[in-house]
Amino acid sequence: MKPIIIKINKDILFKNNLNAQEVRQFLTTRGITAFNIMASPGAGKTSLILSALKLINHRVLVIEGDIASSIDTHKIKECGFEALQINTGGSCHLTAFMIKNILSEVKDHTYKLLFIENVGNLVCPAPYDLGESYKIVISSVPEGDDKPYKYPKIFSVADVIVLNKIDLINSIDYNYEYFEKGIRAVNIRAPIFKTSCKTGEGLQEWVNWIYSNLN
Amino acid sequence: MKPIIIKINKDILFKNNLNAQEVRQFLTTRGITAFNIMASPGAGKTSLILSALKLINHRVLVIEGDIASSIDTHKIKECGFEALQINTGGSCHLTAFMIKNILSEVKDHTYKLLFIENVGNLVCPAPYDLGESYKIVISSVPEGDDKPYKYPKIFSVADVIVLNKIDLINSIDYNYEYFEKGIRAVNIRAPIFKTSCKTGEGLQEWVNWIYSNLN
Repeated sequence: MKPIIIKINKDILFKNNLNAQEVRQFLTTRGITAFNIMASPGAGKTSLILSALKLINHRVLVIEGDIASSIDTHKIKECGFEALQINTGGSCHLTAFMIKNILSEVKDHTYKLLFIENVGNLVCPAPYDLGESYKIVISSVPEGDDKPYKYPKIFSVADVIVLNKIDLINSIDYNYEYFEKGIRAVNIRAPIFKTSCKTGEGLQEWVNWIYSNLN
Repeated sequence: MKPIIIKINKDILFKNNLNAQEVRQFLTTRGITAFNIMASPGAGKTSLILSALKLINHRVLVIEGDIASSIDTHKIKECGFEALQINTGGSCHLTAFMIKNILSEVKDHTYKLLFIENVGNLVCPAPYDLGESYKIVISSVPEGDDKPYKYPKIFSVADVIVLNKIDLINSIDYNYEYFEKGIRAVNIRAPIFKTSCKTGEGLQEWVNWIYSNLN
């Protein structure tokens, strides 16, 4: 008997892509633009989302993806915005199935933007299409300037890159040119915004980019 | 015909554990103590290893695990220490097989300590036994004080926790008591060291812990 070879990764991604197509069709027919936000743990995903929410004059829905806890959903709701929590229960990234599932529970789809905050992880979310319109990758200054060299895949798939916590750039040894060179080695097209949720630097420019890419 | 259910995760971990047992036996019979160092990208794993190497009066071998690049291996070697690079080529964590494989290429096993720097990831390395004696989990202040609540698994398996970049604690809104409470909810025994590779704070205390746990 011949051994059975199962191409697990290919199968999983194939099924994910089918779900992602469904999500994309569902959202685009309703004029909703979705952003899949990916970063390391603690890069400032939730803070950047909150900063953007305060500057955006549209109804926005936020989906928070975490292994455990609903800390970020509470943060968003406390500021008067709409958020839903996905707890992956151990899984290291969101999938399109999870997004399809949670969207099916939403009754009113009259929001214009959807922010999906992925699980904090600079590796595993990269190959998973969630049905988003754009992938946003956040890096933060304290993580160091070598991240594009060590985690090239996620930077290569980004439509836009945000370098957050720029206010800390003088507190540590950080070479922005080296960071940018690493990005450009794998991604020649994505704009890079430098932001600080503490000082407000760069937030309006980033939000302008979001506005210019709405459906 | 009944569907065939394959428990992939269980099988992978079972095979990994067999390799881990081999690695552990290989190391302990030679009096080598191995530390598996896990953290988010940019938490300061390499900097902490380098700081420890300068304080330790034993021969130490370092294994650097990265998706891509050999930046950290160069950093260690430039300072005159011994390091080997594992590039996982996409895999989000090291496995015991990778460790077994690279150790089989080493000719002289007269080192006393082995530091294994895992891929920067606060999720996927947690369940993988590498044959180490101790698991060290590093969190860094700029990542925020809520990490134990969002990534409980990795903190639950730690034998020791290092809170690094403590020099930045006054630059951001960080509640140490909240961080510690999150740790204690999942891990009552691991000591927590506060360190800064910039100011040197806490490094000797952490190295003393390493010394007190050598074979």
